[in-house]
Amino acid sequence: MAKELKELTKRADNYSQWYNDLVVKADLAEQSAVRGCMVIKPYGYAIWEKMQQQLDKMFKETGAQNAYFPLLIPKSFLSREAEHVKGFAKECAVVTHYRLKSSEDGRSVEVDPSARLDEELIIRPTSETIIWNTYKNWIHSWRDLPLMCNQWCNVMRWEMRTRPFLRTSEFLWQEGHTAHATREEAEEEAQQMLRVYAEFAEQWMAVPVLQGVKSETERFAGALDTYTIEAMMQDGKALQSGTSHFLGQNFAKSFDVTYLNKENKPEYVWATSWGVSTRLIGALIMTHSDDNGLVLPPRLAPIQVVIIPITKGIEQLQAISAKLSPIIASLRELGINVKYDDTDNKRPGFKFADYELKGVPVRLVMGGRDLEDNTIEVMRRDTLEKETVSLDGIVDYVKHLLDDMQKNIFDKARKYRDERVYECHDYDDFKERIKNGGFFLCHWDGTEETEAKIKEDTQATIRCVPFAYEQTEGIDMVSGKPSKHRVIIARSY
Amino acid sequence: MAKELKELTKRADNYSQWYNDLVVKADLAEQSAVRGCMVIKPYGYAIWEKMQQQLDKMFKETGAQNAYFPLLIPKSFLSREAEHVKGFAKECAVVTHYRLKSSEDGRSVEVDPSARLDEELIIRPTSETIIWNTYKNWIHSWRDLPLMCNQWCNVMRWEMRTRPFLRTSEFLWQEGHTAHATREEAEEEAQQMLRVYAEFAEQWMAVPVLQGVKSETERFAGALDTYTIEAMMQDGKALQSGTSHFLGQNFAKSFDVTYLNKENKPEYVWATSWGVSTRLIGALIMTHSDDNGLVLPPRLAPIQVVIIPITKGIEQLQAISAKLSPIIASLRELGINVKYDDTDNKRPGFKFADYELKGVPVRLVMGGRDLEDNTIEVMRRDTLEKETVSLDGIVDYVKHLLDDMQKNIFDKARKYRDERVYECHDYDDFKERIKNGGFFLCHWDGTEETEAKIKEDTQATIRCVPFAYEQTEGIDMVSGKPSKHRVIIARSY
Repeated sequence: MAKELKELTKRADNYSQWYNDLVVKADLAEQSAVRGCMVIKPYGYAIWEKMQQQLDKMFKETGAQNAYFPLLIPKSFLSREAEHVKGFAKECAVVTHYRLKSSEDGRSVEVDPSARLDEELIIRPTSETIIWNTYKNWIHSWRDLPLMCNQWCNVMRWEMRTRPFLRTSEFLWQEGHTAHATREEAEEEAQQMLRVYAEFAEQWMAVPVLQGVKSETERFAGALDTYTIEAMMQDGKALQSGTSHFLGQNFAKSFDVTYLNKENKPEYVWATSWGVSTRLIGALIMTHSDDNGLVLPPRLAPIQVVIIPITKGIEQLQAISAKLSPIIASLRELGINVKYDDTDNKRPGFKFADYELKGVPVRLVMGGRDLEDNTIEVMRRDTLEKETVSLDGIVDYVKHLLDDMQKNIFDKARKYRDERVYECHDYDDFKERIKNGGFFLCHWDGTEETEAKIKEDTQATIRCVPFAYEQTEGIDMVSGKPSKHRVIIARSY
Repeated sequence: MAKELKELTKRADNYSQWYNDLVVKADLAEQSAVRGCMVIKPYGYAIWEKMQQQLDKMFKETGAQNAYFPLLIPKSFLSREAEHVKGFAKECAVVTHYRLKSSEDGRSVEVDPSARLDEELIIRPTSETIIWNTYKNWIHSWRDLPLMCNQWCNVMRWEMRTRPFLRTSEFLWQEGHTAHATREEAEEEAQQMLRVYAEFAEQWMAVPVLQGVKSETERFAGALDTYTIEAMMQDGKALQSGTSHFLGQNFAKSFDVTYLNKENKPEYVWATSWGVSTRLIGALIMTHSDDNGLVLPPRLAPIQVVIIPITKGIEQLQAISAKLSPIIASLRELGINVKYDDTDNKRPGFKFADYELKGVPVRLVMGGRDLEDNTIEVMRRDTLEKETVSLDGIVDYVKHLLDDMQKNIFDKARKYRDERVYECHDYDDFKERIKNGGFFLCHWDGTEETEAKIKEDTQATIRCVPFAYEQTEGIDMVSGKPSKHRVIIARSY
């Protein structure tokens, strides 16, 4: 049952509440009975499936293959890479027993104390350790390299404060893990996958992103370099939307993975890993949607066109359906997902509001007058503009409209973002302005101290050293010391 | 690195070892570091992806939508349905803690005793409980029904004796969960999904199956009826390959899920669930493969055609590649997955054996003589027959060959199965003959005692009351009592 649109909080009133409302009201997801874990509802999952489909294709084009590694990781594996365990130990869900038994009164079950595992197992927070333990058996010679596996799976990081899609204890993601003969090849792989993520974000999600490299503090636990794509939400906050890690030889050394090079000498293997998650759905929602509900880019919308007949009586409905039938068929032949909603148990006004809330890009409405005039009313979700057009050529019209909307949504988001990237040289000025959000392009002296002070004073963090801006020398606005980097600083999700 | 073919155990020597060898040597899967959990390697996973793709399409055609529910289930949920908890309690992996901490010497991590969960969480062995707890909020009126969700996910059942694909502690599967207004509709849904599974098994996997209904003893824990498809492996044992359950109102009552009917009166909802798993890959391997390796039905083979040039020198290779290039393009246009293997670091004989081992349906080989004669050598994997044919019309030839092989593989498996379905009226005769495998069509008095005696005497179980055989009245061969059913009895995996 669709919820009443009017209950949706306005962005200006409470952006955070608007997001939470929208996730529920648009039927994307809801809290489950398990703390911090969500149920992804069919409409939300359909978006994820579209994302998966395209990403999977792009991964395979780079030579990656899918595989599947175990959900559970022996506790001792985590400790093997020192930084890695530091990063994840505090959020591990731990399996200690493998059996339940009836309680004494027979009315419930309890853990069977005699079924305690010798070694506890961790639900994967990420799979570097179990995968590199496996790669050890797969890699012997330079001929076995590169090895490029990806898996689509669930992972678990026990979070104290959760929000649907953005931060949940369990989430769905893909994790690519590649092994290479040389440092250069691994670095290039990590960067290539960042470009794949950026292309997906911009071309498919219509979300503009800044590509860059993380500071040491913000790196993935166990990486030598973490590359990131950072998107800007409508409240000016950053959302880290995908990361690709150059892992050096850290995991190869921890799991003793060597290969014989062409001179027959053993060398440690070089590694990368890269991942995006259901968090992307959060990015999608927060970048484009408005006070009427979701705005979805056509390329990822589960329903791209909805057609609603408004009729008096069954005969008129039949006439309209007959008229629309070949149009629907033609649209579907073009690969466009069309829903024809002639259900009679909801008022048209309710349907309009519901499809707006769900972000269906194009709405076509046909009534008795349209039937006479050979016309149809077209509404585009991004601008809410309505137009009555001739049925002749409607298929082409809709096709071009969808393309145009995909571009328009991206352009609008990029303009919004670009207007909120500020160069800033004065820390007092920064502290004041950061309250209203935005990306601040600032010089940084490269020290953890400065980074920590900014975070303490403003909650903002260094998002990345961005590739798109020239790296001039300058003065750190906090310490007054010389700086070699310009970084993007922002509050973030 | 491919393994030497000659190391593959022969089926006649040790069928069980042949299977285990083949799974590893054909690069399908391997044991992981976690007891009872396997790593599905890229080649094995590619088969699973092909299965998923087709099944997902078939599910959606019935109106099911995909969604995602949490991995973890509160322990108390399991107890709500009495039969359900009895069935699964003994194989539950239990999460008791949510944090690790450094050990005193700082060299490893240990469970943080202060981070104990108030209520233990179970890694889903199946998701009826968490899903019906969710459905409670989704179902209010008859308008919300039917509700048909499916999820593709991992599940965990702690098994003591495991075998790759056939029985592993963690496995991948899909589980459909549907809710209906009436008993009739739910029963029809459960039966419809059984038909979908049977169609998939026969048309795509080329595995003939018997459809039927389980005895009470063999039912899913919490079901009123369990429908099953049973396949016969080459050792004459049965493999339960998919099940569909009519759950009655059991879960609706346990989780208090009611709907208002058209007369505005509350009624409990009727339920089904249905699932197939990576076990299907085991069925595929064991039904068709031979002493040379895998035999894959063309519709599920990750590589359908491999083309190997055999040349002297680079010029001849270029000439052959030029000749083959348009043929490869044409095959791909038909949606056929072609691998052109012109790598020069392996001998042709090694390649031949490796692709045979991996079950690639069609092998094309072109050498210098073929180039002169405008011919190519075609080998089909199912019969290992070779033929030299003209390059003119080769695309059509291959297309028809693939179709023919799909049919031939199925026909061969069905003939094998049909020859091993025995009517049997004498228990002594049965006990002797069951040792050699086969499906025994016998009268059964319907009692658990008889069922238990057969199992104790012979390890065989009642696989199902099959739909394909006439249900005549007769005499139970064990008890001598009157019988209304004819059942299929077999040893099974």
